[in-house]
Amino acid sequence: MDWKQQMRALATRSREAARALAKWDTTSKNAALLAMAAGIEQAAATIKVANAKDVEAGRRAGLSAAVLDRLTLTDQRIAAVAQAVREIVALPDPVGQVRREWTAPNGMRMQKVSVPLGVILMIYEARPNVTVDAAALCVKSGNAVILRGGSEALHSNLALAEAMRPSLPADAVTVVPTTDRVAVDELLKLDDLINLCIPRGGESLIRAVVEKSRLPVIKHYKGVCHVFVDRDADLDMAEKIVINAKCQRPATCNALETLLVDEPVAAKFLPRIVRTLRSRRVELRVEERAQQYVIDGSIPLAEIRLATEEDWSAEYLDLILAIRVVAGLDEAIEHIAKYGSAHSDAIVTRNRDTAEQFLREVDSSSVFWNASTRLADGGVYGFGAEIGISTDKLHARGPMGLEDLTSYKYVVVGDGHIRE
Amino acid sequence: MDWKQQMRALATRSREAARALAKWDTTSKNAALLAMAAGIEQAAATIKVANAKDVEAGRRAGLSAAVLDRLTLTDQRIAAVAQAVREIVALPDPVGQVRREWTAPNGMRMQKVSVPLGVILMIYEARPNVTVDAAALCVKSGNAVILRGGSEALHSNLALAEAMRPSLPADAVTVVPTTDRVAVDELLKLDDLINLCIPRGGESLIRAVVEKSRLPVIKHYKGVCHVFVDRDADLDMAEKIVINAKCQRPATCNALETLLVDEPVAAKFLPRIVRTLRSRRVELRVEERAQQYVIDGSIPLAEIRLATEEDWSAEYLDLILAIRVVAGLDEAIEHIAKYGSAHSDAIVTRNRDTAEQFLREVDSSSVFWNASTRLADGGVYGFGAEIGISTDKLHARGPMGLEDLTSYKYVVVGDGHIRE
Repeated sequence: MDWKQQMRALATRSREAARALAKWDTTSKNAALLAMAAGIEQAAATIKVANAKDVEAGRRAGLSAAVLDRLTLTDQRIAAVAQAVREIVALPDPVGQVRREWTAPNGMRMQKVSVPLGVILMIYEARPNVTVDAAALCVKSGNAVILRGGSEALHSNLALAEAMRPSLPADAVTVVPTTDRVAVDELLKLDDLINLCIPRGGESLIRAVVEKSRLPVIKHYKGVCHVFVDRDADLDMAEKIVINAKCQRPATCNALETLLVDEPVAAKFLPRIVRTLRSRRVELRVEERAQQYVIDGSIPLAEIRLATEEDWSAEYLDLILAIRVVAGLDEAIEHIAKYGSAHSDAIVTRNRDTAEQFLREVDSSSVFWNASTRLADGGVYGFGAEIGISTDKLHARGPMGLEDLTSYKYVVVGDGHIRE
Repeated sequence: MDWKQQMRALATRSREAARALAKWDTTSKNAALLAMAAGIEQAAATIKVANAKDVEAGRRAGLSAAVLDRLTLTDQRIAAVAQAVREIVALPDPVGQVRREWTAPNGMRMQKVSVPLGVILMIYEARPNVTVDAAALCVKSGNAVILRGGSEALHSNLALAEAMRPSLPADAVTVVPTTDRVAVDELLKLDDLINLCIPRGGESLIRAVVEKSRLPVIKHYKGVCHVFVDRDADLDMAEKIVINAKCQRPATCNALETLLVDEPVAAKFLPRIVRTLRSRRVELRVEERAQQYVIDGSIPLAEIRLATEEDWSAEYLDLILAIRVVAGLDEAIEHIAKYGSAHSDAIVTRNRDTAEQFLREVDSSSVFWNASTRLADGGVYGFGAEIGISTDKLHARGPMGLEDLTSYKYVVVGDGHIRE
């Protein structure tokens, strides 16, 4: 059998597993999750041997120290990964929830009940912990999962899956046993067997998946996030939020990329925020109107780089910030609509009317009033776990929790009802 | 400008219209709907002139009488179409609904609020009433819509849109002004401007759209619907439901295609249902185990055609029914899982445990207990209006109402909250 045939056979088995798992009740799924966690801990030695193979191959292939670090599984990390599985036990079962209950006009009793999606294909990069997190979230939501992690982590992923499988229906968790691209390309075509693809990784990986996929894809392209400091802002709060949004972890999608400052407070706010940003080594790209407020003598003119049109839609993922002065709320909203990525955007203001207009009119998956964009996160929101974050508007938007791994069915109870 | 450029320009204007419409409150949208209805009535003469052009061209092109009838707009039909718009006024506004409200672990106040999707592309066949229904549903849900109806109805659709537009933001409702396929192919690529495509029509139209589209598509392929008559069924009720599901409107997607009969009641139920079906001129495709119960002397053997493997997955859309005897509930569920289309499936039984297992384990968008599959419909369910019916599991499943034309955003209110 070639990879094409093998992938169809693999996905067919996953579909069977999904049907089996869909019948499991909460108690059975939680017992399986605890067994998965124990299985991982018991197989720690085997997992480390497999992982060492990956790390050694990666070293020879010249992977960066950062990638090698993410790839490496220590006892401590294996324990943390197992612990993360145990935490999912405590979360509510998203399956079987009655989302709505009513009586139809003709008297039938109606329920809209959540059901698993079926088979989920995860495509991701070099972090073996995603293998376990995704498997645990899929089991809890009654879905079978096909995992296609980074080729650098293949042995680690196979060993982790092996450790998790004994307590599950056969093939409920499957690691694609090859790094051959023909295999994943084939999986992306199997829309009769696989219900959803969730790619996680850089923009180029995701664009390649979308290009090739016949499956529905829930994805995250990029986060060009804004903070708008309104004329009625508490400027101390604004400074705290801007610094947190930009500096706390600049390489993440919910980090700040463009600061918008309302004209009436520009003279007061810009010099102080620029001083603090520079003390945190943040490079600036400044729009013309903002430039006058930034040059306060303490900064050499040569260091103030003018923003170009490209800066407004740039996702720096680094200690770089674009700054623009706007004439008011409407101009801020226009700027975000034109250049933003509809991910996460914030306003800092004490004015409720202004805030409410911003929250209503900015069409982003998360809109914040007096809080940092860095807070856009399933854990922070209280979802307990996050399978990904979506910049799509269909099915799931923003941080995705267990609920987003379900669909629903209409359960209709009649008494001989027919269509008249 | 060629069609490609024109379509990008058109979709860009739709996007602007969507932003304008998203700001409208319920009162404004309802006022616009009433004005749209009045506009259609006032333009009745103009609409009929345009429609006569389409009908005449259709006649010359040799369209069937049925298609010509669907295409024709009379005063009465124009009034009915306008009335349907007025009925949407009474439905609740799906935008701005707080779907969930809670406090995050760090104390932020959280809301999950419904928002319009943005721009929706409808692709459909020769019924001009869809032009008005879709426009009205999109306006109520705050979405701009691009309508690409059947080429046979182009003049009618343009005239209807013209009559609806004056009360709306410019370009909120747009009929693609050409039947050139280059135009629609280009629209299907504009995933930066259009949020969703809903094709309505035959399976080949829908498959062609899915094949070409880079947009998310919510679609309906086919309905291979089952009724399972369980050993504990009330056989009078079973007969009533089977006849209704098969005969009331056989060309619809929720009509019955395969009847499954539990072995213990086959001898009692099959002869009577077959007599009634034959009196309704239903052709039968009978599985071997069922054959013995069907031949009761009154039916010539030559008329009992054996079912082939293809019959189990056929969507006849006609007065044809496949019949199979199964050894019990589990075999019925297996049959539906293997051959069904996950659209609408029913069980007839007085046994609650049996029914509950069926409702739980059959993975279809609607599952019925003691009711006809023909009842799978947004109107019957009380949604007030239906934009389509989905056989997908992502975003929307089953009959789609106004709510399914929305996405959501997370509205987060902090007090200077930052990520620690």
